[in-house]
Amino acid sequence: MPLSRMRKDSLDAMSQQEHDFRDRIRTSFGRQGAMALIGAELTRIQHGTVEIELSNRPELMQQHGFLHAGIIAAALDSACTYAAYTMIDPDVSILTIEFKVNLMSPGKGDRFLFRGEITKPGSNIIVADGRAYVIGDGPAKLIASMTGTKMALRGREDIQE
Amino acid sequence: MPLSRMRKDSLDAMSQQEHDFRDRIRTSFGRQGAMALIGAELTRIQHGTVEIELSNRPELMQQHGFLHAGIIAAALDSACTYAAYTMIDPDVSILTIEFKVNLMSPGKGDRFLFRGEITKPGSNIIVADGRAYVIGDGPAKLIASMTGTKMALRGREDIQE
Amino acid sequence: MPLSRMRKDSLDAMSQQEHDFRDRIRTSFGRQGAMALIGAELTRIQHGTVEIELSNRPELMQQHGFLHAGIIAAALDSACTYAAYTMIDPDVSILTIEFKVNLMSPGKGDRFLFRGEITKPGSNIIVADGRAYVIGDGPAKLIASMTGTKMALRGREDIQE
Amino acid sequence: MPLSRMRKDSLDAMSQQEHDFRDRIRTSFGRQGAMALIGAELTRIQHGTVEIELSNRPELMQQHGFLHAGIIAAALDSACTYAAYTMIDPDVSILTIEFKVNLMSPGKGDRFLFRGEITKPGSNIIVADGRAYVIGDGPAKLIASMTGTKMALRGREDIQE
Repeated sequence: MPLSRMRKDSLDAMSQQEHDFRDRIRTSFGRQGAMALIGAELTRIQHGTVEIELSNRPELMQQHGFLHAGIIAAALDSACTYAAYTMIDPDVSILTIEFKVNLMSPGKGDRFLFRGEITKPGSNIIVADGRAYVIGDGPAKLIASMTGTKMALRGREDIQE
Repeated sequence: MPLSRMRKDSLDAMSQQEHDFRDRIRTSFGRQGAMALIGAELTRIQHGTVEIELSNRPELMQQHGFLHAGIIAAALDSACTYAAYTMIDPDVSILTIEFKVNLMSPGKGDRFLFRGEITKPGSNIIVADGRAYVIGDGPAKLIASMTGTKMALRGREDIQE
Repeated sequence: MPLSRMRKDSLDAMSQQEHDFRDRIRTSFGRQGAMALIGAELTRIQHGTVEIELSNRPELMQQHGFLHAGIIAAALDSACTYAAYTMIDPDVSILTIEFKVNLMSPGKGDRFLFRGEITKPGSNIIVADGRAYVIGDGPAKLIASMTGTKMALRGREDIQE
Repeated sequence: MPLSRMRKDSLDAMSQQEHDFRDRIRTSFGRQGAMALIGAELTRIQHGTVEIELSNRPELMQQHGFLHAGIIAAALDSACTYAAYTMIDPDVSILTIEFKVNLMSPGKGDRFLFRGEITKPGSNIIVADGRAYVIGDGPAKLIASMTGTKMALRGREDIQE
């Protein structure tokens, strides 16, 4: 096989794989009642990174009028979990074992971005880091970070996408 | 003053203080859009401990049909934060600095209980531990734990109950 | 077999199992260079709980003269890991995936106790909680807590006790 | 004042400030019994970042022959704490409130690097992230990460460098 053909096949395989995990993540995200409840949108999926965005509204606030820490945790956890889905085989599912969230600035703003990135891939345990930002006209402002540990599950019929 | 009278005054003071923080917590909880959004109910307030309960519904689930980790975090964080409110002066507000959540069993069930307890009170930094359970006919089943760090804020007009 | 005999057999089995994990933990602890370096002693082993004690000395301090947070983490992590060893089969090894430590009071004192307890046993993932105390003449004073996540490893020849 | 002069003054001020925090950190590090005990060396101090290196030896190992998680935590916590010292006033002290460590790969190797960086500076609460690597001939290998929360203390005579 000529080199140029090999390269193209390899690119096609990459595209196919990328196409597949995008499909899988979009479908799974669509089935998450919690993400629909808070109005989260999946805005970016690429190998190792997933982003979710959210518009603020009173139902997402805590008692001081800031975005509730639990909503921040929900969106960061989903972004980190789906980032893991970009790096696993199609028959594997991901469960969150634990996460830690640091709240650095009050979640004041109209729109928020949650980015999850894989720090350590693995066939069993995966570590992801997430960051939450207020976004708008100026530069993004960091409001929170997450480190989360995920477990890859195989052959569990009760845990399906 | 006779001893019996002193005891009664002391009890009245206790009751008054307890009455005050219960009022404050109920009012604050009622202003939390996020707690209303997920349908959380404040079911127990006592010195050092607050409990919140939640009935499951599809909007609170993640993609496998379990209670979403972020919803668990939201309810545990609120229970821990309000537990801190039972141990501070009325002019102090509480902000969560950070928390860690361990998810121990899938959140499968109809009703959940979230208990927050103060492990280390303080005038500046407060540490709370929370536990989440599936409750129903049988014994409660532990599904998650939280350790959270809170900061006491004084004289911040932007952070009000 | 008469009931009394069955009970005795069951007790003997329990004693044998308990004898076995005590032996295993003592041997493993003895091979931990780090525990010898800091002068830690294994003072209690029972099903689900392990305690380690430590006498303070200048080499264990941080810059303010308190017990170094890393020494606290080392002793708590060992106590939590060995607590997991009391609840697994003899051919399984335990690795720490992650832990979180809250430092609640300065580690000032002559002697410290570190208790690790299993909160959630499991064949794959185990969650342990630990607490560190200053001990002495009066009541023990809580100085730190840990929540740690452990993984059970089978058939890994590179990870042996 | 001519512009060139202003720039030079500003550079001198920067140098002076940098000189000051380097001195302070080196002196404080030298007083940490725990860092001497494990043989840690301070290898880099710059605004917002501190690095510590460590050579492996049997006394630093856990029972499987890897670098003990507590030693990793000790070195990462010191790197993160001193990174905070590069961003505070000279009369302020830093205490660690809490940290979380993820252990990603076994600590196998001859030499380790621990980098602490400030993610969120603050006059009261500071968040730092740390990463631990095996270093040697090839590329550095990530073995652990830390997120830690620090508190800035003013006017506490019992907490001095």
